Amino acid sequence: MKSSETAWVNPLRAPEDKRLPRIAGPSGMVIFGVTGDLARRKLLPAVYDLANRGLLPAGFTLVGFGRREWSKQDFEDYVRQAVESGARTKIREHVWERLAEGMHFVSGAFNDDEAFDNLAATLGHMDATRGTAGNWAFYLSVPPAFFSDVVHQLDRTGMAQGADNQWRRVIIEKPFGDDLESAQDLNAVVNHVFPEKSVFRIDHYLGKETVQNILALRFANQLFEPLWNSHYIDHVQITMAEDIGLGGRAGYYDGIGAARDVIQNHLIQLLALVAMEEPTSFSPRALRAEKLKILRATTPVEPFSETTARGQYTAGWQGSEKVVGLREEEGFDPNSTTETYAACTLQINSRRWAGVPFYLRTGKRLGRRVTEIALVFKEAPHQPFSDSQAAFLGANAVVIRVQPDEGVLMRFGSKVPGSTMEVRDVNMDFSYSEAFTEESPEAYERLILDALLENSSLFPTNEEVERSWEILDPIIEYWADSGRPDEYEAGTWGPQSADDMMSAHGRTWRRP
Amino acid sequence: MKSSETAWVNPLRAPEDKRLPRIAGPSGMVIFGVTGDLARRKLLPAVYDLANRGLLPAGFTLVGFGRREWSKQDFEDYVRQAVESGARTKIREHVWERLAEGMHFVSGAFNDDEAFDNLAATLGHMDATRGTAGNWAFYLSVPPAFFSDVVHQLDRTGMAQGADNQWRRVIIEKPFGDDLESAQDLNAVVNHVFPEKSVFRIDHYLGKETVQNILALRFANQLFEPLWNSHYIDHVQITMAEDIGLGGRAGYYDGIGAARDVIQNHLIQLLALVAMEEPTSFSPRALRAEKLKILRATTPVEPFSETTARGQYTAGWQGSEKVVGLREEEGFDPNSTTETYAACTLQINSRRWAGVPFYLRTGKRLGRRVTEIALVFKEAPHQPFSDSQAAFLGANAVVIRVQPDEGVLMRFGSKVPGSTMEVRDVNMDFSYSEAFTEESPEAYERLILDALLENSSLFPTNEEVERSWEILDPIIEYWADSGRPDEYEAGTWGPQSADDMMSAHGRTWRRP
Repeated sequence: MKSSETAWVNPLRAPEDKRLPRIAGPSGMVIFGVTGDLARRKLLPAVYDLANRGLLPAGFTLVGFGRREWSKQDFEDYVRQAVESGARTKIREHVWERLAEGMHFVSGAFNDDEAFDNLAATLGHMDATRGTAGNWAFYLSVPPAFFSDVVHQLDRTGMAQGADNQWRRVIIEKPFGDDLESAQDLNAVVNHVFPEKSVFRIDHYLGKETVQNILALRFANQLFEPLWNSHYIDHVQITMAEDIGLGGRAGYYDGIGAARDVIQNHLIQLLALVAMEEPTSFSPRALRAEKLKILRATTPVEPFSETTARGQYTAGWQGSEKVVGLREEEGFDPNSTTETYAACTLQINSRRWAGVPFYLRTGKRLGRRVTEIALVFKEAPHQPFSDSQAAFLGANAVVIRVQPDEGVLMRFGSKVPGSTMEVRDVNMDFSYSEAFTEESPEAYERLILDALLENSSLFPTNEEVERSWEILDPIIEYWADSGRPDEYEAGTWGPQSADDMMSAHGRTWRRP
Repeated sequence: MKSSETAWVNPLRAPEDKRLPRIAGPSGMVIFGVTGDLARRKLLPAVYDLANRGLLPAGFTLVGFGRREWSKQDFEDYVRQAVESGARTKIREHVWERLAEGMHFVSGAFNDDEAFDNLAATLGHMDATRGTAGNWAFYLSVPPAFFSDVVHQLDRTGMAQGADNQWRRVIIEKPFGDDLESAQDLNAVVNHVFPEKSVFRIDHYLGKETVQNILALRFANQLFEPLWNSHYIDHVQITMAEDIGLGGRAGYYDGIGAARDVIQNHLIQLLALVAMEEPTSFSPRALRAEKLKILRATTPVEPFSETTARGQYTAGWQGSEKVVGLREEEGFDPNSTTETYAACTLQINSRRWAGVPFYLRTGKRLGRRVTEIALVFKEAPHQPFSDSQAAFLGANAVVIRVQPDEGVLMRFGSKVPGSTMEVRDVNMDFSYSEAFTEESPEAYERLILDALLENSSLFPTNEEVERSWEILDPIIEYWADSGRPDEYEAGTWGPQSADDMMSAHGRTWRRP
């Protein structure tokens, strides 16, 4: 009875102040591509929200870099507009004014030496006048084609290297290449100038509360982990479904497709978090070591003709709206073979997961927008119900809903009221928003703050990125030789081949 | 991957008609003590509800036996009133009329030979005219002191034994004795006349839906059973709390007390269902074999000075109502030492449960009315949260709520929204009434029908009853030598000694 004597006393209980988020130290951030969509919709509002929550240092300095010929005031006006339309928290004028004071804009192209010399001079001036202390984060919110130019300029001007006790970090956005080789090239460019510990790759899914909650659920509790293995789990389904189409995104998407856009990063990262062994701590080093270990054990299941599916949406009804097919979308090649739906089967070669397939799927123009991880259990090995009572049961499941309506759901069988022992599936539900009064910060708030704090837990490493491509490349290569994707009508749940790949093993996709 | 190929196909699926409750065959029932409180409030309404649901045979015949000088019409009027105030389902005149046709009343005392001869003649007449086919259930809704008389008369008149292809059954109500010896005596009296298979002991708690659901939850699912053992469970709390006092119940309760009234039957039966091994089927034989096996492995934990607690309520506030203490209640001895609160610690000497204490408690005038079984988990053996993040966690728990608001609740830790990895307890809830549109039958409906169908699964055997006393007797004897019970104020959760008995092992009672 010894172990139980501490059952109600948590030995890890930390003093109250540890629960408050840490505040970033003296620093500034340069955003390249500040006039772009991502910066306007996500990054600038996130910077304001952080300032409003008191998590940025007093002299925080935000420098925009772009080709426009903007004055400081123009830049302030632009940021203000972005904040007003995108911030999560309320605009408070004194917070805004303090933040706006530290805004600067440097005009130029990514190959313009003079502009970068200006930028370097600006940073030096800020360090001298605003107390940024030589600590700078460079946010590359630009297409990968420009990474090389920007990184080279940061190197040439000395901005990439701070003095002792100063830090310089680079934050980059996906896509991290479009196959293993291009990812290696990209990493080589970046790591040539910035050591890996100064590189922060953003996978914004990892900034979501429910994604981080996977770790809390698994490792803070005694309830789940004993079930989290091949003895009890039949298979795992990881789904990111979107209802939107690709109108207006041809430039980025055509020729890339769903597997590269979503599976390689978001879904494989979710797989890593849900499948990995317990880290010794939540330090970045320990966490990333476990993620990389599980990815190294992960391989695609062949033959791909049976274990994968891909599709391209055709015209159909999305709710009450008539929508066009991909090949009619503006900007897309009418003969495009880009897949808008991708599903694959991965296996994890470890004692814990041997024999448990992980099914990953993503698509555009599906039935509804939902991201979830479903652990589907084996049936109970024996049911004493066979004798005289009926049982109408699916399999038990634990479902982690990432979005929308973040939470956890458990499905199990319960007795139906009445004189017989009929058992029927019921759901038990936990909703994040109902359970907590705290509002969830946006993923970018969390991630920008983490980068400023050098908390790299939630950022994939170059090794993780490259390993993910290694897992996915054989499937993409197989598809490249297999002609057109299958068709599926917009508003449905993907092509017939996706259902076939499951039913071949007596399984079905969840209809979330 | 073989086992998973049937994951979505239930091989035990039975034809639709098996889910319908079975209808009782030709039969009738005699209620002794039909003018008593239990008959009026529960038994007569349950008989009507069964008739209304079409579960009684067409010629079902209800015979009341009592000292009143009632005509058939008087009896009908009395039953009608009981049904109108107590039935769960709607009064439908054609159902009522058919049921009323088969009602008869026989007047007499339990030692009145002539009255019983009359009764025997009545049953014979009914068999000849109403098609009851010689199948009779005798419901002894009378104090145990009269069991002997009634059973003797049933024997003397031959009513206890039917001809070939006829059945005669006796249904008896608790208390089944007030210690092992008196229970043995009682069983000897009954079993001398009725073979054990014809004896149906009612523990109405076992007729409750959520109690039967314990078996469904455990054995129809893969989610729970792997956790259901000493590796993961720290301890189990079984609680039946009542807010009512004992005004008007002195005759039954004074000198009996909470342990005999509730723990010996309801709580020990709940323990058996929650702790037993899987039965080979849900047949009465298989189920009772497992219950008896687990009870034989159950023993009280000593020393009782530390592992038990008992209390007696004093005046206090029950919500907004000022209430008196037990010794001021009408009819109670002002020096009564009867306990109104009882708690004890049991252990189960088996591989599954070694080292897991089962804490049972019950009381009157507690904070609120609730019956629940809480399986409290051990803490996770390691938490990677210690490094930089705080964790404010109790222990995980699975709680089966028997009443009110029947359902299942799971408590576990979840990440609190925000930039830190704070983990906080949340509840995940499943409510029986929200999940099912089917209305739950009353426990007595279920149990009376089961007795008519000879489905004895939910009725404790003589061996179970005796074993329960064997478990409890040493505690009651210890208390008998220990003076007055501790006092607790009405409206609180019992005496200080009850909290002390838990805190000595670093545990606390749930405040449900």
